[in-house]
Amino acid sequence: MSDATNITFTIETFPNPAPLRPYTIMHVNSEFTSVCPITGLPDFGTITVKYVPDQTCIELKALKYYFLDFRNKGIFYEAVTNKILDDLVAVCNPLEMDVVAEWSVRGGIHSVIHASHKREK
Amino acid sequence: MSDATNITFTIETFPNPAPLRPYTIMHVNSEFTSVCPITGLPDFGTITVKYVPDQTCIELKALKYYFLDFRNKGIFYEAVTNKILDDLVAVCNPLEMDVVAEWSVRGGIHSVIHASHKREK
Amino acid sequence: MSDATNITFTIETFPNPAPLRPYTIMHVNSEFTSVCPITGLPDFGTITVKYVPDQTCIELKALKYYFLDFRNKGIFYEAVTNKILDDLVAVCNPLEMDVVAEWSVRGGIHSVIHASHKREK
Amino acid sequence: MSDATNITFTIETFPNPAPLRPYTIMHVNSEFTSVCPITGLPDFGTITVKYVPDQTCIELKALKYYFLDFRNKGIFYEAVTNKILDDLVAVCNPLEMDVVAEWSVRGGIHSVIHASHKREK
Amino acid sequence: MSDATNITFTIETFPNPAPLRPYTIMHVNSEFTSVCPITGLPDFGTITVKYVPDQTCIELKALKYYFLDFRNKGIFYEAVTNKILDDLVAVCNPLEMDVVAEWSVRGGIHSVIHASHKREK
Amino acid sequence: MSDATNITFTIETFPNPAPLRPYTIMHVNSEFTSVCPITGLPDFGTITVKYVPDQTCIELKALKYYFLDFRNKGIFYEAVTNKILDDLVAVCNPLEMDVVAEWSVRGGIHSVIHASHKREK
Amino acid sequence: MSDATNITFTIETFPNPAPLRPYTIMHVNSEFTSVCPITGLPDFGTITVKYVPDQTCIELKALKYYFLDFRNKGIFYEAVTNKILDDLVAVCNPLEMDVVAEWSVRGGIHSVIHASHKREK
Amino acid sequence: MSDATNITFTIETFPNPAPLRPYTIMHVNSEFTSVCPITGLPDFGTITVKYVPDQTCIELKALKYYFLDFRNKGIFYEAVTNKILDDLVAVCNPLEMDVVAEWSVRGGIHSVIHASHKREK
Amino acid sequence: MSDATNITFTIETFPNPAPLRPYTIMHVNSEFTSVCPITGLPDFGTITVKYVPDQTCIELKALKYYFLDFRNKGIFYEAVTNKILDDLVAVCNPLEMDVVAEWSVRGGIHSVIHASHKREK
Amino acid sequence: MSDATNITFTIETFPNPAPLRPYTIMHVNSEFTSVCPITGLPDFGTITVKYVPDQTCIELKALKYYFLDFRNKGIFYEAVTNKILDDLVAVCNPLEMDVVAEWSVRGGIHSVIHASHKREK
Repeated sequence: MSDATNITFTIETFPNPAPLRPYTIMHVNSEFTSVCPITGLPDFGTITVKYVPDQTCIELKALKYYFLDFRNKGIFYEAVTNKILDDLVAVCNPLEMDVVAEWSVRGGIHSVIHASHKREK
Repeated sequence: MSDATNITFTIETFPNPAPLRPYTIMHVNSEFTSVCPITGLPDFGTITVKYVPDQTCIELKALKYYFLDFRNKGIFYEAVTNKILDDLVAVCNPLEMDVVAEWSVRGGIHSVIHASHKREK
Repeated sequence: MSDATNITFTIETFPNPAPLRPYTIMHVNSEFTSVCPITGLPDFGTITVKYVPDQTCIELKALKYYFLDFRNKGIFYEAVTNKILDDLVAVCNPLEMDVVAEWSVRGGIHSVIHASHKREK
Repeated sequence: MSDATNITFTIETFPNPAPLRPYTIMHVNSEFTSVCPITGLPDFGTITVKYVPDQTCIELKALKYYFLDFRNKGIFYEAVTNKILDDLVAVCNPLEMDVVAEWSVRGGIHSVIHASHKREK
Repeated sequence: MSDATNITFTIETFPNPAPLRPYTIMHVNSEFTSVCPITGLPDFGTITVKYVPDQTCIELKALKYYFLDFRNKGIFYEAVTNKILDDLVAVCNPLEMDVVAEWSVRGGIHSVIHASHKREK
Repeated sequence: MSDATNITFTIETFPNPAPLRPYTIMHVNSEFTSVCPITGLPDFGTITVKYVPDQTCIELKALKYYFLDFRNKGIFYEAVTNKILDDLVAVCNPLEMDVVAEWSVRGGIHSVIHASHKREK
Repeated sequence: MSDATNITFTIETFPNPAPLRPYTIMHVNSEFTSVCPITGLPDFGTITVKYVPDQTCIELKALKYYFLDFRNKGIFYEAVTNKILDDLVAVCNPLEMDVVAEWSVRGGIHSVIHASHKREK
Repeated sequence: MSDATNITFTIETFPNPAPLRPYTIMHVNSEFTSVCPITGLPDFGTITVKYVPDQTCIELKALKYYFLDFRNKGIFYEAVTNKILDDLVAVCNPLEMDVVAEWSVRGGIHSVIHASHKREK
Repeated sequence: MSDATNITFTIETFPNPAPLRPYTIMHVNSEFTSVCPITGLPDFGTITVKYVPDQTCIELKALKYYFLDFRNKGIFYEAVTNKILDDLVAVCNPLEMDVVAEWSVRGGIHSVIHASHKREK
Repeated sequence: MSDATNITFTIETFPNPAPLRPYTIMHVNSEFTSVCPITGLPDFGTITVKYVPDQTCIELKALKYYFLDFRNKGIFYEAVTNKILDDLVAVCNPLEMDVVAEWSVRGGIHSVIHASHKREK
């Protein structure tokens, strides 16, 4: 199993059509799946990305392909959430961004990880 | 496919029956549809308009016809949300207005765009 | 169709049993109906009245009969919400009162009007 | 507005992968829209097609494009349901087929039309 | 209060577009209201009409106006259900018809009346 | 605590307005309460009475008062369900009657008792 | 019917196992019933008690018996909510306490009363 | 871990109060737990017992204690369902009995076992 | 992408603990995923397997690994449903088996395939 | 029954993969069970642990085994909530932690206990 931290990617963007007005864009992917690095069994989750764009918006189809790259990678809950936040902030440099990962039940336990980024002024 | 930014429209209004008291009016249209400018396939969404009127309220039937004008126009998620906000603010000059567009699932991803306007004092 | 602004009414009240403690009373009437003044067709809605009483509480049965008086009157969404707030504030002089009117779908659009009153100190 | 009965179409099919075993295929399109022939206003509905294939299955993407052809056609609730059943039976000659059309609320009334076809032995 | 049995009405119909195929039409009116003949207080209910047409279908807008005629009439739960069934069978002579009336809670009790008609062969 | 089998009652009835057509009447009382004969603690349940009337219907307000008589009586789940069926069959001699009693959770267990009567021909 | 203000009671308490840390305890009783002092008919409601204990916690079984004492008492919605708050504050002297009473529908109206206590420092 | 097939038990019963009328009794225990005999980890489920009594009914509190005996026993899904059916049929000799065991998710899979008994005539 | 029809597998079984009594076992896997053979994009679905065992039951963990083998295989909706049914019937030779595959929305269309097997007597 | 305060445990941890960014981790265990110290009967609940890690995260499988240790211990609602908070704070020294315990209904009452810890700066 390859190391998820080595995913190389490009995510297409487009210019924000309303750069003068702060507003919120949210994309909810309820079909995210990656692999547990210990057991090799798949994990299933819902990833929510919510951001206030500055000059650049993330293209929706490109975002879908970015998520697909995790399908067969081994990565932990906490790590994948922070990695998605790091990657997407790097791509579009938003004013604010939240990433929430909600995972399906494992051993009777349901987990949710929530990480946020706010651009320093 | 015509350019959605060229929609010409008039939206009938009526005088606010309680102009001395700030209060909130919300209209939720769960039957909004426009067209994806890239694929030509239809998009379906729910548009929520929530505002605090000043002197003028938006007439409900006129609002319905305004939304119908998008039925066969090609326009992106982020653009349509901001355009509706711009158009309706221009029509009734409210104290505050929010427009939320919630789109049905495409490629496993559900998107929500939320833009706000607040009148400067 | 008579003019709803001419409804004459009396609403029975009773002394607040706990006048020294600010607390909240909410009554939700999910069976409100009035008439659209343009089409003559009935409107159906849920009216929520929430208030912090001062010396006086609104009697529940009297409130029901007050709502019944709108059954065959023609009145707009925005007007009826503000009128109910004005009428009930006049009746019991509360510290605070909110009236929320949620209307059933018309032409694919669901509307909610929310008006508030706060007594000046 | 053109006459919906004049829609010309081809729907791609593929050979049933299990022709020896009767089984059921159901496709639910919750994004169907056509136009009321009287008012010119759009109708929104959910179309469910459920069938037992014989030698031929309906290709899913082709079915989507078939439904899209109704977007700007004027046709009544009862007629569109029967037309979809007629068209799809002609395309794949199934052992059985059901078409259910559930329409969003108009004037406080929600309508459902259900038509069935069973091949004579 | 007038006697509901004296409602005079005409309900527009149209020719069944698929008279050779038995199929089902269901209209659900969730905004029915009439008046209790004893207390004079309004009753609220959902009326479902489901039928297999023969030569004639009931026009939807006409059905809405038929229901509106009960708004200020005094009539009991059991009587109104049977009257609607009698009236609509007389209008369109269907192969089968069901009328279900579901009433909102009164005194902690929720009531449902269900009457059916099947044409004798 | 008195013995529930000693409840004396009269339940007002009225003539069936459609005696020639078999149809179904259902009354659902979600506010039933009686007392456990062993612990003296209250039981709470929903009682559904569904019947096909012959010549006689049960008056709704009378039914409510009949149910109220159980409020402080001690009676077991199985017994109360059968008693209500016996009593109401005796009152209106229906073609068919079902009584279903659904009880709130006790010790992690939710119980439902269902008894039926069908008139012999 | 006795006067509810005369209920005499004792509610067992126990020492707070974590007196150094402010935390919240909530008990929701969905089986509360009392009697309307005007009609003599039963009222049904859900009582929620939420508090931050100081030195003393309310014993759960004792709380259940305290609620049972209202079963056959006549008391108004507003009064019972304030009385429960007064009684329970007197019993355990908490840092904060909220009592919310949600009543089942009467005449189409659902009522909720919410009273709070905060200990003065 | 002891062998679940060795559970010894007695379940108190009482005489059926309506032995002349076939009727249905259902008890739903949503707090069942036993142990997986392979992993030693707990399983959680909902057990529904539904039966038509003959001369004898199962006492509710006794049923609760019978279920509690499985808390620390190792037993498979299929075996526990059949064992409960065997045990309870032996205790009350009903006309019919169904046992349904619905298990919480393990490894993304939710399992339901359903076994029935019908007395031979 | 390899051909799904070439999946080789073994599924562990165990002897039916109640072979004399026909009963039903249902396993619902809400985390099934395979790949569309045309687009290469993943499909997500819920697979329900319901069967009446004869001498042999399917081991739950083995079933989970069988489903995992489809994760990166290209296979159509109709084919995968029939293949699972064929494979599992071959493994345990049940009296009856149903396989239902419910797929997440693609292009606004939700699909469900249902195939059944009944052993000939 | 042993004293729950004597549970000895070790909970495996791992280094926080994003120690420079405050973020939230939530684990929801809907299969918690312990024993009432008075009656010896089992309690069932959902335990939610939500925390902002500093240098150390709690390993998920270890958390599961920690919860399992309560299965046959006698401990009160208020005590178990505070003990879990104390234990987990001691294990990972988080910036903030919340523990919420929601208990299933006992005697018609549903209880929720909520305790929080915030690290002093």
